[in-house]
Order: sequence, then structure tokens, then C-alpha cells
Amino acid sequence: MHEFGPSLFIGKNKGYISFGSGQPDLAPPKRIFGVDKRFRVFKYGLVRGEEKLRVGVAKAMREYGHKFSARNIVITNGASEALDLTFGALLGKDGGKVLLTVPYYYTYPTLIAKNRGRAVYTKLVDGHIDLEDFRAKLEGAKVALVNSPANPTGCVQPRKTLEEIEKMTRDLGVKLISDEVYSNLIYEGEHYSPKGEHVITLNSFSKTFAMCGLRVGYCCANEEIVEKVVGLKTATSMNTSVLGQEMAYEALKVPHSYVKRQLEVFRKRRDLVYNGLMEMGLELWKPEGAFYALPKVKNPKKTVWELYSKHRVITYCGEWFGAPKRIRLSYALNSAMIGKGLKNIENYLKRH
Amino acid sequence: MHEFGPSLFIGKNKGYISFGSGQPDLAPPKRIFGVDKRFRVFKYGLVRGEEKLRVGVAKAMREYGHKFSARNIVITNGASEALDLTFGALLGKDGGKVLLTVPYYYTYPTLIAKNRGRAVYTKLVDGHIDLEDFRAKLEGAKVALVNSPANPTGCVQPRKTLEEIEKMTRDLGVKLISDEVYSNLIYEGEHYSPKGEHVITLNSFSKTFAMCGLRVGYCCANEEIVEKVVGLKTATSMNTSVLGQEMAYEALKVPHSYVKRQLEVFRKRRDLVYNGLMEMGLELWKPEGAFYALPKVKNPKKTVWELYSKHRVITYCGEWFGAPKRIRLSYALNSAMIGKGLKNIENYLKRH
Repeated sequence: MHEFGPSLFIGKNKGYISFGSGQPDLAPPKRIFGVDKRFRVFKYGLVRGEEKLRVGVAKAMREYGHKFSARNIVITNGASEALDLTFGALLGKDGGKVLLTVPYYYTYPTLIAKNRGRAVYTKLVDGHIDLEDFRAKLEGAKVALVNSPANPTGCVQPRKTLEEIEKMTRDLGVKLISDEVYSNLIYEGEHYSPKGEHVITLNSFSKTFAMCGLRVGYCCANEEIVEKVVGLKTATSMNTSVLGQEMAYEALKVPHSYVKRQLEVFRKRRDLVYNGLMEMGLELWKPEGAFYALPKVKNPKKTVWELYSKHRVITYCGEWFGAPKRIRLSYALNSAMIGKGLKNIENYLKRH
Repeated sequence: MHEFGPSLFIGKNKGYISFGSGQPDLAPPKRIFGVDKRFRVFKYGLVRGEEKLRVGVAKAMREYGHKFSARNIVITNGASEALDLTFGALLGKDGGKVLLTVPYYYTYPTLIAKNRGRAVYTKLVDGHIDLEDFRAKLEGAKVALVNSPANPTGCVQPRKTLEEIEKMTRDLGVKLISDEVYSNLIYEGEHYSPKGEHVITLNSFSKTFAMCGLRVGYCCANEEIVEKVVGLKTATSMNTSVLGQEMAYEALKVPHSYVKRQLEVFRKRRDLVYNGLMEMGLELWKPEGAFYALPKVKNPKKTVWELYSKHRVITYCGEWFGAPKRIRLSYALNSAMIGKGLKNIENYLKRH
């Protein structure tokens, strides 16, 4: 019954070496544990999220130069739900054109279609945005989406590019969604978070604090958009788990050194994966952020299927991300597993 | 910025006497606490939900005569998300006609419109389904929805009615969604859960186990529908909180006496509210299940607004539920508060 797609692999953690779904294997900060002891009644919370968490998120966004207040924040079931609701709020009943970069995170086109939108694409050049093509394709769009650092490319867009896009979309009256869930995982360059009344910023606790399974994310936007998002969420899922929110609130208190330590762990893994794949003679872009590599291989679909079904190594088809000649490796697993997994892949590729 | 609607009130628990949102004030079963101690890594879970919880839910559904296996279950962010995804799965790109009973739970029309459907209505007669009108309106529908015990009417549909609808929809090739979140709260009559390949059964842990704020619900359906629901959920919110699921799993082990004790508490409250409102001379149906009363009042909108803004008593406008001449009272609060709240309402009504 299962389709051959990401949903076949998500949550499959045991007995596989998984370069599959993008989730940190590191432990979440200790202080998030034990919060359920403080709860005895699990009533509905505010649909937009607990006040103290929204205040905390607004404050945390100052790191990137934002001046949000709690009224600009909605707490959601991960950045995925934030994106779904944002598309719903922006596209409304009439839909509209949405500009995506390709390769893209695999749910983007699904969410756009589901929300009556029509996706158009600008091709990344070596993982980076071609501003001329971006500008040309933006004509007549209602929404554009940028994702830096990016899944599945691992690329970080230069600050200048993002500033240019921020300006370009504002001038044309296009809403700009900025998916920044990997903002804390940058190995080369810096993070830039676009700003303005026309910008909707998405982020989550999943990657930074290794809390994927708890599903706590958020969107930041002007109050008009926020009210639309809350209106939709009131019908679809109501409040995000009050317990998850409490744990997220605790996570916000974690010192920056925790995030920095994580970054160093991931930088080593990045080097391991990048060098390993280069040594196999594969063509790929050097990952600048997030935890993905996207090498070209021959017969990518067959490769992914056989690595999974015969060698218990999970990788993802580039095709799912609009990159049909490639496969995606997430390197959110420990060095020993990375080494073992790469060895398996190398052996497989040699034989085929 | 806030619209005058339910989202203004949801999560407003402090400093008000709330006959507002429908959530038990009772404590959840003790055994659900402390499960976060067992977790150290919060990875993504299966989008469809943890295997053991789905097995448990399938088993629990045997109480109502269902023969589901884990493959028929998807764990969701409350029954609300289950309904949104089910509409998405059933209506697809083309939408279609959906038959609702009126008064209805307020999110139904929103969710139908959001999923490209077109709602048509059959009016309840004293809270009960008029089979002749139901049958007439069913013509050309893709989906019909029943909700027994019902929010906001508090009415339970007779077994014969539901059996007839189960048959009628099957014969006409109409999908039947049965929203049964109050199945454990019936004071008069019995619960009947419609069956068949064409039926989608929704339920949740929120009401039975006082876990509203944790957002764990589920839908049960044939495997084809389940796969469509999982496909959508993979894009929109991924797995339901793994911690919430673990707590729900613990809740399933709670002995039936817990549920029975709750029922007795609510029966007393039902009597208190029903008798209290009758003594005020209001017209209402005797609640047979769930925890709602829906009396007629003069100027219902003004009544709700002034009770809220001047007397800190929350009630809901019947208008939000398709019953513009009425107001809804949820009686999920303790007897002392019910008494105090009713007194406030009585004084207010006397003066106006």
C-alpha cells in the first residue's frame, strides 16, 4: 500500500543506517525533560500559542534583526504546519502563482497545490539563486518562497541575494515566505533573515533543539496574516500541544553554547560526508549549511530502492525534490554510522 | 484584531466562568504523567502514528463492534485534524457536495470550504435527524457527516436512524464520516458507531481522558483512504507529537471505571444545567450526551458579548453553530462554578 516516497521512510529508525529523514540524532537539551510533572490539567491552550512562548520567540528573533512582538507569532505543529497554514492564509479561495527554487523541499509543491496555488520554478545554479531568472519568474506571482540554508541542497544563499529578493518582492507587492529551519546550522557564510511587512518567517525547534518528534514550530508575520493563520488553525488543529510548547519554552533558555556545540558536531559530519562522496568520484555541491548532501548518481531511483531493500541503508530520491539525477543524504547520524553507511554506498556503486 | 468568534475564547481559562470551549475540567488519568522520563531522543515518528498506539486504538474500537487493524488507523492532532485530512482525502481536487446536519459543530463548514467542498444542510428536528429530509438532501452528495452525541445540541441519534443512514449512504455510494468524540458521554440511549467500507470514524482522547490540550485524535477508515490521509499529513504536520502519543497509549490502559465515574460527574452537571435553564423559563432540548446545552434566548449575540465583557461569563453564540436564536453552554466545569455562572446568567436575563 505504501507509495515509494518519503512517507515510506519517515519514522523508520531501527535496524537501518538512515541518511533519510532530516532529523538530528543528538539529544535534546536536558532541561526540557520533566516538564510534564508541572501539568495536571491539559486544557486547550490559545490557538495562536502560549503567550510566554510567543514572547520568547519574538525575543529570540532579535538575533536576526527582527522586531517582532508576541502578536506577530503563531506556534504551530512544526514549520510544516506553519507553511501549510501560511499558504492557506496567503492564497485564500483564489489561489495564485507561487515561485519556488528547484531543487525544493519535497512538500512545497504538494502544499501549494493543496492550497489552490500554482507553482512555478526558478532553477538554482550550483545550488544558488540566479537573480535574473528569479526576477523574470516573479512576474505575476502572489508568493515567493526562499529556503536558506536549504533542504535538500545544503546551500546557503548569500546575504546580498536575499536582500535583493527582499527588496524585489516588496517592490512588486509579492509576499515572501522565508523558511529558515536550518538557521543555526551554517558552515560557510552567514544567515540572513529577510524583513518587512510582506515577509513571513518560518522556523522551528525541531532541528536546533533535536525536538523533531514533538512538532513545535512557528511563523512570524504581520498581524493581518497572523489572524488569518489563527483562523485556519482554529478549524484544523487548534492549539499546538501544550506540553510540547512548555518544552519549547524551556529550550529557549538553553545557552547559545549548546547550539554552537551542535554546529561543530555537524561540521565534522559534513566534512566526513562531503569528502567521502568526493572520494567516490561523485559530483556534488559542498554543503554550506543544514545537514544534506545531494550527489549525482547513475540510476538514482534504483540506487535508493536497492540500498534500502538489500542493504538497509536509507537515502532519498532526488526526484522527490525536483533533482531527478541525484540522491539526497541527510547526515544527521553519528560518525561511525556515517562511515559504515558510506562504505555500503561505495560498495554498491562500485558493483553497479 | 480578534474576530468575535470562538477563537477569541479558546484557551481563556483564568478569571472567567467559562461555559465556552468544550473541554473537561477533570484531571486526566494519573498514569499518563511521567512518560517524558522515558524519552531521551525525540525523533520523528511514523506519520500514521506509533504502531502500538494504532494497535491499541483498533482494539478499543471493538467495543463498538468494529473490526479494524492498525492499518486502518491514523493518529492525528485531535479529531479536528482527522476531519480536515479526511475531507482533503475524500474531496480531492474536485471538491463535491457534503451533507451536514444543522446545528453543526462550528468548524465543519470552514473545513469543507477549505477542502473545496460545498456544504448542504438538513435541519435537525428537536435535535434529531429527519430521515426523509436527510435522504432527499443526500442526492448527489459525495460525503455525509453525522455527529452523535452532538456538539452543540447535546443530542444522541437513535440507533435505528444511524443504521438507516449507514445503509442509505452505502447504497448511494456516499462516504459517511462519523464524528464520535463524545461516544463515552451518553446519558440517554446508547452509542451506535456506523460501519462499512464507506465509513470513516473519528474519535479522540481529548474528551474521554481530559487531554484536549495534548491534541491526540484518530481516524479509522479503509486502507485506501488511510493512505490518502497519511499522504496529506506527510506534507502538513508529519507525525503527531510522539510524547502525546505515548500518553494516549497509557490512557488506553485506564480501566473502564474511570470513564464511568466521569460519566456520573457529567450526568449531575447535565441535570444542574438543564434544570437551571428550564427554571429560567428558557426553551431547550434535554441534553442526551456530550456536555452542551443550547437554549433559545432573546438577542443571543448581545447576550454572549455582554455576559463576557461585563460579567466575565463565557458562552458561545448559537449563530456560530448554525443556530442563530440560541446560545451554547458547555458544562465542563464544576458544580459550584455552574451554580455561580447560572446565577449570573439569570440575573443578566432578568434585567434585559
